[in-house]
Amino acid sequence: MNRADTGLEPRLALIAGNGSLPCQIAEALDSAGREFRIIAIKGEADERTRAQADTELGWGEIGRLYKFLKKTGCRDVLLIGGVSKRPDFTSILGDLGTLKRLPTIIRALAGGDDSLLTKVIRLFEVEGYRVVGIKDVAPQLLASSGVLGKIQPNQGDWRDAELALRATEKLGELDIGQAAIAVGGRVVALEGAEGTDAMLQRCAELKRIGRIRSKGRAGVLVKTAKPNQDLRVDLPTVGPMTIDLAAAAGLAGIAVEASGALIAEKEETLKKADNAGLFVIGIEHGTRFGVTSKGQADERS
Amino acid sequence: MNRADTGLEPRLALIAGNGSLPCQIAEALDSAGREFRIIAIKGEADERTRAQADTELGWGEIGRLYKFLKKTGCRDVLLIGGVSKRPDFTSILGDLGTLKRLPTIIRALAGGDDSLLTKVIRLFEVEGYRVVGIKDVAPQLLASSGVLGKIQPNQGDWRDAELALRATEKLGELDIGQAAIAVGGRVVALEGAEGTDAMLQRCAELKRIGRIRSKGRAGVLVKTAKPNQDLRVDLPTVGPMTIDLAAAAGLAGIAVEASGALIAEKEETLKKADNAGLFVIGIEHGTRFGVTSKGQADERS
Repeated sequence: MNRADTGLEPRLALIAGNGSLPCQIAEALDSAGREFRIIAIKGEADERTRAQADTELGWGEIGRLYKFLKKTGCRDVLLIGGVSKRPDFTSILGDLGTLKRLPTIIRALAGGDDSLLTKVIRLFEVEGYRVVGIKDVAPQLLASSGVLGKIQPNQGDWRDAELALRATEKLGELDIGQAAIAVGGRVVALEGAEGTDAMLQRCAELKRIGRIRSKGRAGVLVKTAKPNQDLRVDLPTVGPMTIDLAAAAGLAGIAVEASGALIAEKEETLKKADNAGLFVIGIEHGTRFGVTSKGQADERS
Repeated sequence: MNRADTGLEPRLALIAGNGSLPCQIAEALDSAGREFRIIAIKGEADERTRAQADTELGWGEIGRLYKFLKKTGCRDVLLIGGVSKRPDFTSILGDLGTLKRLPTIIRALAGGDDSLLTKVIRLFEVEGYRVVGIKDVAPQLLASSGVLGKIQPNQGDWRDAELALRATEKLGELDIGQAAIAVGGRVVALEGAEGTDAMLQRCAELKRIGRIRSKGRAGVLVKTAKPNQDLRVDLPTVGPMTIDLAAAAGLAGIAVEASGALIAEKEETLKKADNAGLFVIGIEHGTRFGVTSKGQADERS
């Protein structure tokens, strides 16, 4: 891969996990004329990503990774795409460069309370690299504000969106939860460790057994970032699968944080939503939609 | 049933649904020398409750119910025990007294945003009855503060209890959620419409698939009342089943709101917890246990 150097920004390295996102980013960077290199993560990166990649490295090959970054003049790093297999400590003891850096790596990874991704960021920063996010290099891929598909939310939908948004805000104050679902003026599901997909499946089941009652399509999934979330490496994301699960749960639509969430495979996702009759909206924290919230009507549980 | 009238308090009517709680209340009232009558709800009350009941009435027999209350001089009413079948509007059109009161009943039940139980309370209040709660007539059945079983929580357990308590408080501000689970310094599950039992089952599954990691027994279920919860008819309750599910989820213990939650079948529940190695504690809203909360370590989801 050889692209014209604009000379304006440091060269960017995409360290690419699974999914189609790395290729989408590459496309966006190409359009913007930014120079970059792709490093595919072995056992994670998709076929299409690997076809475009400049090199392919395994978890243990940290020495080779730094060598590649230095050789290609990359100073910015974007960690992009999912990782399905969690590396264990033995698999990272890969090459000489890794061993040489072992004290630094151990110091970075051993740090008590931070997430694995925060630790990985530190691994790059101690070597003088800057870890950037999608917002920094391809902000056009993030959700914009307002109605994004063809379906318009109604008054009740806006109220549900606001209720679920408030719930995520409250949980965000404790640094938990990215997502919530409100149906018919009542918050019915809150995301914990199970993740958004499992929460949507739960909602479908609760509707099926009559524990959540609604006529026709009703309810909104809201997905936002937590206040302390590092959006460089952990971006709230919805995609075609989210639409499928939201439709299966009988929801009326989904709301994501404008400028703070990613709609993966945007075109396909929005088309899928249109076809299923679901709205997709971009909303902002703290926004109130001017609808009064309906009092909670919890039954004895 | 004929008990000596103390002359100090109005006679109490227990309107009894399923479970063993009605009999426990009857026992507590007997010990306290309070006079009462038991009205068993047809199709709901247990065998033991029915054996002690003074009469048995179905959903539609509101006229007969009021007649019974008047005849027996009951002025206070305690709605107690669970209700597994939800009455529909046709099943309440039962007797002449019901039909006579239909306008009042419809007014009470049609009121927009309140829960069914709040509406039922109103049905009694418009007839001049006072609806009381367990707290008013048998407060000794509510959880007390501190360590209630034989197992003592450790430092990490208190921290988890505090984290989950804070989560229920935040959710309570929005009138949602009675319960949360924290494991190893991280809130992993929040209760929505699924109820506490289903949340515990989810937690067990998330541990099984490695989405929640812990060594040995770890984590605390916290169950509290919402600020606006009407404790007369909707009391957070734990029982032997809660202990079974918490043990299956690998939790270290459970915490309930002191003076605001009920431990059903207290003796059996606490013995079960002791045998399973789970602690049971009573805690209060706003209490902080003097342990610093561990930063959240969420992985990409």
